Amino acid sequence: MKIGVLGTGIVGSTIASKLCALGHEVTMGARSAGNETARTWAESAGTNASEGSFADAAAFGALVFNCTSGMHALDALEAAGAANLAGKVLIDVANPLDFSQGRPPTLSVCNTDSLGEQIQRALPETNVVKALNTLNCLVMVDPARVPGDHDVFICGNDEGAKAQVRELLESFGWPAERIVDLGDIAAARGTEMYLPLWLHLFGVLQTGDFNIKLVR
Amino acid sequence: MKIGVLGTGIVGSTIASKLCALGHEVTMGARSAGNETARTWAESAGTNASEGSFADAAAFGALVFNCTSGMHALDALEAAGAANLAGKVLIDVANPLDFSQGRPPTLSVCNTDSLGEQIQRALPETNVVKALNTLNCLVMVDPARVPGDHDVFICGNDEGAKAQVRELLESFGWPAERIVDLGDIAAARGTEMYLPLWLHLFGVLQTGDFNIKLVR
Repeated sequence: MKIGVLGTGIVGSTIASKLCALGHEVTMGARSAGNETARTWAESAGTNASEGSFADAAAFGALVFNCTSGMHALDALEAAGAANLAGKVLIDVANPLDFSQGRPPTLSVCNTDSLGEQIQRALPETNVVKALNTLNCLVMVDPARVPGDHDVFICGNDEGAKAQVRELLESFGWPAERIVDLGDIAAARGTEMYLPLWLHLFGVLQTGDFNIKLVR
Repeated sequence: MKIGVLGTGIVGSTIASKLCALGHEVTMGARSAGNETARTWAESAGTNASEGSFADAAAFGALVFNCTSGMHALDALEAAGAANLAGKVLIDVANPLDFSQGRPPTLSVCNTDSLGEQIQRALPETNVVKALNTLNCLVMVDPARVPGDHDVFICGNDEGAKAQVRELLESFGWPAERIVDLGDIAAARGTEMYLPLWLHLFGVLQTGDFNIKLVR
């Protein structure tokens, strides 16, 4: 499958590399084509890896990952172009973390809105699915790093889009029964507002190799 | 032990009844002494149960639970009286849920502050410990309702106060290793901001008999 990955940071490169390893063709998108980080990644990730602008990556992908930093995600998606994303599934992995006042970060949007909802409103022709944002990126693409059962959350307005994301998550190693559908995209408030707890748990555990399991 | 429980709602009465069942002497506090709900509770909960005003309950308890509704917690604690709470442990179970705009509720404070921190600032002579607020009240006092391992979070500025809360939680049935200390009271932002995710999970599962397990 042709997949665009927007963002050249650790989350973007980890997901893009996993997708290449699974045999997908991947274009990593940056603010401009020829971005040094994206070029270095594309050169190392194999023959099915390429790089370009946000618009290049969005146009290339039949499915697109948003792995940009949350504070700049809306700008990056505007640069990617609504037309390039229309009719496609956009998996939003970003968290709207604001480090401008230092650490711990706050959220630039929360409580009465979420980044996932903002993106869905900005791209009405795109099926946005929020997923994976409650996890360290290494766990996102290799859930077995954390032993035992634990859960990943998805939400979005389109059932077909969520089914496609489920399939992709299963290919990452997530068991079908550990993929929890929280409902429509408004549930992104829940998974994004979990971040402060995640950050405190990270502080206690001193590792990103953890997750939560829903117990019932 | 003499314990004050502020709040006559389902959380207050569930915790107060559990404390009575464990042999503690409990005064349930309401806006005014003689509150009908508090009287009904006290009459049914046995000889070690009584009721009074917020100030009565705060003065009575060597340890005090805040189980008031989060939106009104600061007012209730002001009525309870800083002098009545000075030098004591206050276990803050409340969540600042705002239902004024309908459901789902939003949080009346979050992101850059929390109810737990507000209460600690309002009561500098009291050792506030945030605990249990990530759970349905039936699970708070009977963790075995949810089979298997799952976690309860505590946070607060005073180690001695947290040790006292740990002991009480263990008497509720929480295994010592499932009581996770997140650090100082600022971690209340994490556990309070988890509420939107809890509410979405409640919507999916259609029961409050669930919790999360930290997996590492």
